[in-house]
Amino acid sequence: MEWEQCWLNYHKVDYKTSPAFQHIYHNSDDCRVLSAVQELKTGLSAMLDITPFSSNQQPERTQQSIQLVILTDQLDRYGLEGYEIALDGNNIKILAATGAGILYGSFSLLRGIAASVPLEQLCGIDQPSAPLRMLNHWDNLDGSIERGYAGNSFFFQDSNVLVNSRTRDYARLVSSIGIDAVVINNVNVVNDAISLVTPRYYDSLKKLSTTFEAYGIKLFLSLDFSAPIDLNALETADPFDEKVQSWWNRKMQEIFSAVPNLGGFLIKADSEGRPGPFSYGRTHADGANMLARAVAPFGGSIIWRCFVYDCQQDWRDKSSDRAKSGYDNFMPLDGQFLDNVALQIKNGPMDFQVREPVSPLLGAMQQTNQILEVQITQEYTGQQKHVCYLVPMWREILQFHTYCQANNDRVEDVISGKTYGNQLCGMAAVANTGNEPNWTGSDLAAANLYGYGRLSWNANLSSEQIASEWIQLTFSANPSVVRAISDILISSWPAYEKYTSPLGIGWMVNPGHHFGPNVDGYEYDRWGTYHRADFEAIGVDRTSGGTGYTRQYFSPNFETYDDVDTCPEELLLFFHRVNYHYILKSGKTLLQHIYDTHFEGVDDVRRMISQWNSIHGLIDETVFQRTLERLNFQLEHAMLWRDEINTYFYRKTGIRDKHGRTIVS
Amino acid sequence: MEWEQCWLNYHKVDYKTSPAFQHIYHNSDDCRVLSAVQELKTGLSAMLDITPFSSNQQPERTQQSIQLVILTDQLDRYGLEGYEIALDGNNIKILAATGAGILYGSFSLLRGIAASVPLEQLCGIDQPSAPLRMLNHWDNLDGSIERGYAGNSFFFQDSNVLVNSRTRDYARLVSSIGIDAVVINNVNVVNDAISLVTPRYYDSLKKLSTTFEAYGIKLFLSLDFSAPIDLNALETADPFDEKVQSWWNRKMQEIFSAVPNLGGFLIKADSEGRPGPFSYGRTHADGANMLARAVAPFGGSIIWRCFVYDCQQDWRDKSSDRAKSGYDNFMPLDGQFLDNVALQIKNGPMDFQVREPVSPLLGAMQQTNQILEVQITQEYTGQQKHVCYLVPMWREILQFHTYCQANNDRVEDVISGKTYGNQLCGMAAVANTGNEPNWTGSDLAAANLYGYGRLSWNANLSSEQIASEWIQLTFSANPSVVRAISDILISSWPAYEKYTSPLGIGWMVNPGHHFGPNVDGYEYDRWGTYHRADFEAIGVDRTSGGTGYTRQYFSPNFETYDDVDTCPEELLLFFHRVNYHYILKSGKTLLQHIYDTHFEGVDDVRRMISQWNSIHGLIDETVFQRTLERLNFQLEHAMLWRDEINTYFYRKTGIRDKHGRTIVS
Repeated sequence: MEWEQCWLNYHKVDYKTSPAFQHIYHNSDDCRVLSAVQELKTGLSAMLDITPFSSNQQPERTQQSIQLVILTDQLDRYGLEGYEIALDGNNIKILAATGAGILYGSFSLLRGIAASVPLEQLCGIDQPSAPLRMLNHWDNLDGSIERGYAGNSFFFQDSNVLVNSRTRDYARLVSSIGIDAVVINNVNVVNDAISLVTPRYYDSLKKLSTTFEAYGIKLFLSLDFSAPIDLNALETADPFDEKVQSWWNRKMQEIFSAVPNLGGFLIKADSEGRPGPFSYGRTHADGANMLARAVAPFGGSIIWRCFVYDCQQDWRDKSSDRAKSGYDNFMPLDGQFLDNVALQIKNGPMDFQVREPVSPLLGAMQQTNQILEVQITQEYTGQQKHVCYLVPMWREILQFHTYCQANNDRVEDVISGKTYGNQLCGMAAVANTGNEPNWTGSDLAAANLYGYGRLSWNANLSSEQIASEWIQLTFSANPSVVRAISDILISSWPAYEKYTSPLGIGWMVNPGHHFGPNVDGYEYDRWGTYHRADFEAIGVDRTSGGTGYTRQYFSPNFETYDDVDTCPEELLLFFHRVNYHYILKSGKTLLQHIYDTHFEGVDDVRRMISQWNSIHGLIDETVFQRTLERLNFQLEHAMLWRDEINTYFYRKTGIRDKHGRTIVS
Repeated sequence: MEWEQCWLNYHKVDYKTSPAFQHIYHNSDDCRVLSAVQELKTGLSAMLDITPFSSNQQPERTQQSIQLVILTDQLDRYGLEGYEIALDGNNIKILAATGAGILYGSFSLLRGIAASVPLEQLCGIDQPSAPLRMLNHWDNLDGSIERGYAGNSFFFQDSNVLVNSRTRDYARLVSSIGIDAVVINNVNVVNDAISLVTPRYYDSLKKLSTTFEAYGIKLFLSLDFSAPIDLNALETADPFDEKVQSWWNRKMQEIFSAVPNLGGFLIKADSEGRPGPFSYGRTHADGANMLARAVAPFGGSIIWRCFVYDCQQDWRDKSSDRAKSGYDNFMPLDGQFLDNVALQIKNGPMDFQVREPVSPLLGAMQQTNQILEVQITQEYTGQQKHVCYLVPMWREILQFHTYCQANNDRVEDVISGKTYGNQLCGMAAVANTGNEPNWTGSDLAAANLYGYGRLSWNANLSSEQIASEWIQLTFSANPSVVRAISDILISSWPAYEKYTSPLGIGWMVNPGHHFGPNVDGYEYDRWGTYHRADFEAIGVDRTSGGTGYTRQYFSPNFETYDDVDTCPEELLLFFHRVNYHYILKSGKTLLQHIYDTHFEGVDDVRRMISQWNSIHGLIDETVFQRTLERLNFQLEHAMLWRDEINTYFYRKTGIRDKHGRTIVS
């Protein structure tokens, strides 16, 4: 086999079976139900060594079975994607109002068995937190992947769309964790990707969307706002031009007819050189609504990214603040977007740094559909050469109280629709997959993909619970294995944060590829990402006395962040300019804290390696060795991070480490 | 016309003519003589508005003429490339022992006329300082040029060799300034360039070498040391392997037969990832000599670059010193190279920075042919977007006393053969040409190409003299024009040095493309180019108490450089680690000097612009405007340099500018 199965490994388990497992009854031949049947057969036979029989004929009363039952009249009870697992005598029932619900319920049952959870404990109703649980693939049609660290694309090769058995396994994998929408191509739509919305690609897109449909996944495409020009149809892409509007109307009629199960489009406009409505003096609402009107007749949605900022800043200009730009650009448009438009809000407000505050735009827009965008692929968090389990970070974001209203004010509430009653909302994440055999380059990075899916389905799952599930499904239920790998995962984000840029300052990376330390790498560049470290202080004052960024938050977040004494210390340097002698709550000076955490972070990696070594022999040897190799690299690289950052600050301040450890002078 | 003629513009001049100009007699039909005749016709008709007649028939005694006379028995008097201009009654004689001499003499006559020098003053014998006056083109076969800032290659396109009328004009241009050897392809021999030594290219190379021959130019190629492997002939390129040796012998037999007028090969071995003898545990002498033996039967030469250093250094390792590597690698091999090998020694010892000491290898090797390598293309000196007239720098190098012996110890002497009596020596320079209409991207950058040729012919020409010649030939003999442009040129290198990296420290550029300021750009990288600036000092101690680099120089250079008090201040930070409060001879502190020079450098550019504006209307408007555009960019960019460097040091030291000028904090 050319690729592996990640958390759908279906290891053999010691599970109390019953005759019900031998027979699968389904009352519908919906394509998602048939996928569920197939998956149950695959999973049960592999894990329990039985060969279930399936049928859509009502079984005899005495025949025990797993029953997949669509109850079309129970939509209120189960929702569009929810399900119930129930025991009815000796039968195991999976009930739902839709085929998608049946599919999710079946995956849930399999997950429970794989993790040896007794059937009784699996019973109950489960529904997703948010309606949209998307993956964004930044795959290019030439097969490369922007910010991809797991090989090339399995969606594209040499400008063709690939649909094959790996595509189906991809759909199985992501469906099993609740993903229901996938954007297959890069938000930067260039070269042949512009032509994805032309007949050349309709057959293969239809094949792909049909594969996706059987797993409850809507196909989305990233769209080029200038397509009318770039496809040589018109001279303008002005959303107020009637020719442009009718071009888009015809185009959408054409593609939605040719490609069923198309969900809609994702657009990066007026951002980092991409075209957009600004060129015509129109607003983002003008641009998004034009497209939204064109896709509305087909039930399509427009997902519009809010990652809009000045990427031609002069470092000498201290009045601009990139952190403010998302809010500044979009907040004034609240209420102007049509119902089938959702704004996709990147978190953090700057980019995907290891530590940033929650975007102030989340929750602020009361009349706009909102999607939270996070990044699974580890662009700024070690590029899958470092272990960095990101679920705890995403959980913090989801649990964050925006104080946009008295109740239901957490980000989780905002993006699930609880806050303002939106229908089109949810979560999107930049995927970390590629065509390497293990899908994610690093074996441990699969925990992030798995965790993203699970968390976007159920924001209340804990990071530990998700880790434990994933380890059992992927590696082994051996408690030593679960404990060791879970410890590695849970300690990995804090460790990475410790040995890289401190206290929310971010960006101390090599420009372009973003790998490895470079403290001044972006300091004099045009991207608006400055730490402004000098001989006595570091940071940008984003308080009301500074750039005023803190004012974008509701009270009391505003006051909390605005005051250096109440600002959470992990975000201290995001919000404040602080002297190296400033005393933290630990009693340490800021600089000593920087030195200490950088030594600690490296020690943490050493500990992770010894934990990994402790499970040698308990998991697959190939996986053990290739992961050990990455961990050893991580240690070397963490030492480089430590030394480069400590040296940088030592050279700038002349202040020695209190403990006399080696800092290269 | 698609391209311009630079200093072969042949503007109309007001010159005292005589009937002799009407008739050109040549006593030989050597191809170089015929080129000379053709050039005289072109030049005289354009400048003097006459149509000379030419003949190889001895003219009537009464017929006045320009007489091109090869005197084969006068080789001792004129040398292989020298000539004499003499007046004989009303005849103008150009005498030489070879066709090349006649050609150089003819160009000299034309140059004199263009610059309105009276015939009497042109009389005399002239011979080149050094036998080899080479250009190295870093052109790739796909048409790109490494470190090229003047468009694409005119030698290669889509893996083909181009030979056309532009090639001929190229040969005319460089021959007119005395160039006698040209390497057409990049020293980094990759992709199709590896196949240049296969029959696929022999026809076009022959055509090219024939074109070159008519202008006294030998064709050289850069060679891939691993060619036996890369051309799939053998499994090894070990110079001690007999199969390798005979493969090279056969290969050289083949190519020298197919391509007459081939001069030999240039090799970059064991350098920045290129293959070389180190892979087989052999020395550079072993590698070079193997090739030298193979080309010797055909009169060929091997030019071997000395740019060998560890490009995988760890910045934390303070024991290594890249500056030492050329000497350390090659000095022990002195005396081991065959006579038809020349070592091409890059200056400076680090790379082509705006200010470096002279390489200590020059003159140190007593039994080895030496070629001085400089760079015309402005990789580190503004990339032809900044004016930076480099002739004064090269002159300093040539005039430098190595003290390798009591007399004839200057670099000029070493590379002309005066010091040790070598035959195969001279100067090589990385060219700054491309297929832009004006050849060098920036019009003013042509002064560097011109100046390199003239200086390598005659190391005693002054920078001012060369500038003045070039301006008159290119633009106008109008004294205002000559004065203004000459002032711009002469002030340009000092200005560039002032607003970029100070006092010989170098390298404060963006990595990779090397354009624009980035003080720490290379500071934590693997290239061995560190300034190690901290809160109190900057520089690497390369003295006998430091890395010991100074010991590579002869006395008294060693002592001069070794002592901070006697070290020339422009090189202070190359040799010494110096506190910011150190008092320079000007009475200023080091840091105040850095601030001051950075403000001054920008002011110098402002002055250059106003000088340029002063000649508006006096030169071609197109050239005026396109140059003004570059100058205006240079001013903006110089300000960025100034601000980034001043801010960097202010942030590191907290020391304010004494004069209170704006330094971004």
